[in-house]
Amino acid sequence: MTISHPPTPGTALWLYAHPRPDSLNGRIFREGVDTLAGQRNVLTSDLYAQGFDPVLRESDLGQLSGTHGNFAELLGDAYTQGQLALDVRAEQRKVAEAELLIIQFPLWWYGMPAILKGWIDRVLTAGFAFGDLDETGLPRRYGDGGLVGRKALIIVTAGEDGRSLGSRGISGDLDTLLFPLTHGVLWYSGVASYDLHVITDADGLDDDAVARELRRLRRRLSGIAEEPARLFRNLRDGEYRGTRALRADLAPGRTDLNVHLADDRRL
Amino acid sequence: MTISHPPTPGTALWLYAHPRPDSLNGRIFREGVDTLAGQRNVLTSDLYAQGFDPVLRESDLGQLSGTHGNFAELLGDAYTQGQLALDVRAEQRKVAEAELLIIQFPLWWYGMPAILKGWIDRVLTAGFAFGDLDETGLPRRYGDGGLVGRKALIIVTAGEDGRSLGSRGISGDLDTLLFPLTHGVLWYSGVASYDLHVITDADGLDDDAVARELRRLRRRLSGIAEEPARLFRNLRDGEYRGTRALRADLAPGRTDLNVHLADDRRL
Repeated sequence: MTISHPPTPGTALWLYAHPRPDSLNGRIFREGVDTLAGQRNVLTSDLYAQGFDPVLRESDLGQLSGTHGNFAELLGDAYTQGQLALDVRAEQRKVAEAELLIIQFPLWWYGMPAILKGWIDRVLTAGFAFGDLDETGLPRRYGDGGLVGRKALIIVTAGEDGRSLGSRGISGDLDTLLFPLTHGVLWYSGVASYDLHVITDADGLDDDAVARELRRLRRRLSGIAEEPARLFRNLRDGEYRGTRALRADLAPGRTDLNVHLADDRRL
Repeated sequence: MTISHPPTPGTALWLYAHPRPDSLNGRIFREGVDTLAGQRNVLTSDLYAQGFDPVLRESDLGQLSGTHGNFAELLGDAYTQGQLALDVRAEQRKVAEAELLIIQFPLWWYGMPAILKGWIDRVLTAGFAFGDLDETGLPRRYGDGGLVGRKALIIVTAGEDGRSLGSRGISGDLDTLLFPLTHGVLWYSGVASYDLHVITDADGLDDDAVARELRRLRRRLSGIAEEPARLFRNLRDGEYRGTRALRADLAPGRTDLNVHLADDRRL
């Protein structure tokens, strides 16, 4: 497979979305970046501090704005023709350079804060993150997108406890709630994710618990290079061929989203 | 149960998020509102046209901005004390009035556009959409939140086809992808949803197909009052009691999110 944007070995991008610097998330961001900086070149995107505008709109097309056609495809044209907005191009350069993406956010309404969702909407354009065809004419997506060669660690804080967000928990299990990110965004673009790094009961941690969580995070980050990343199934392996649904002989009878995890394959 | 904000019978709010007025979504919005206006009083929130700011930030707290504490709880205090931003209060008034919510958006990266996610982050504050305790001391959520008494119809367009977004489809089935909205946002706040109204292959429809889709939508809207809404399980029914996970005797062995649907109960 072709690597569209070869990452720079040892470079990480820490993508962070929380409005309050004095929050638990603020501490996680600062101490996490410090820890990682001991072993890597760390770029950061502190979306609130940058005042990042998350609204994908007509002006994202640059001089192509107003052109009739499919908006996602036009964004791909704007990418190719160097028409994307300066803030988007700056983010794309950081993503292109990083081989490790850290994506840190508080769980708001069972998903990402809007400022982070809009970073995805605006930055991961056609042409940059997806859109090519492979040698067989299949679109390069789900395991082989424009960002192939990268891995991602998602760090998420949640006010709820681990039971509410666990298997059969009332709020839905977090792996399924974040499937649109791990699979629909990252894997679609070629990025494999590590197991989620989850901090539950995040609103009620006392000082000792915060210190424990920060130690746990530092240990995780220090060893991340040795961790296996989870793989979903590859579109090109033929497991969906013909119907775009998973072949009946694979994970038979099941309808949960874990059927899309590759069996026993880790990167 | 207490109805915190009694809706006005016959009033609907059409919440809409697409940047291009000349898009398929633009036509659906205009013709849908026209159709509904024949039978109801229709309020609208055209988020792009309004220039809605989707970034929840410190200034959302009004005079409480800078106060130490949990951000979600402070938003609840800001609501109670009339400190929320004017644009947020205007949206809350519309939601309070509506007994039917129409939520229309294109599927971007397997979720809502950021401008719509941020409407949820900013508008559905504690105090307004959730946060009370019932007479037994349980939080009023999942079936009994601040917006109880309302129903919602989600209209979503997708570039992909129905197989990719169906059961075992490569992109994940759409009901599961949108569970954070139907269950985590709406049901959490007390709102029951109708079956999703999905328009697939939305980028490739010719004029005839567009006309067919618009007819199908008008028929759906005209009969919506007679449709049963889907119910998830109620927190207060004891089906999660003790563990915050679904009792082992209900939907035994399953881990898909449909275990949270109430069996055979429709509103």
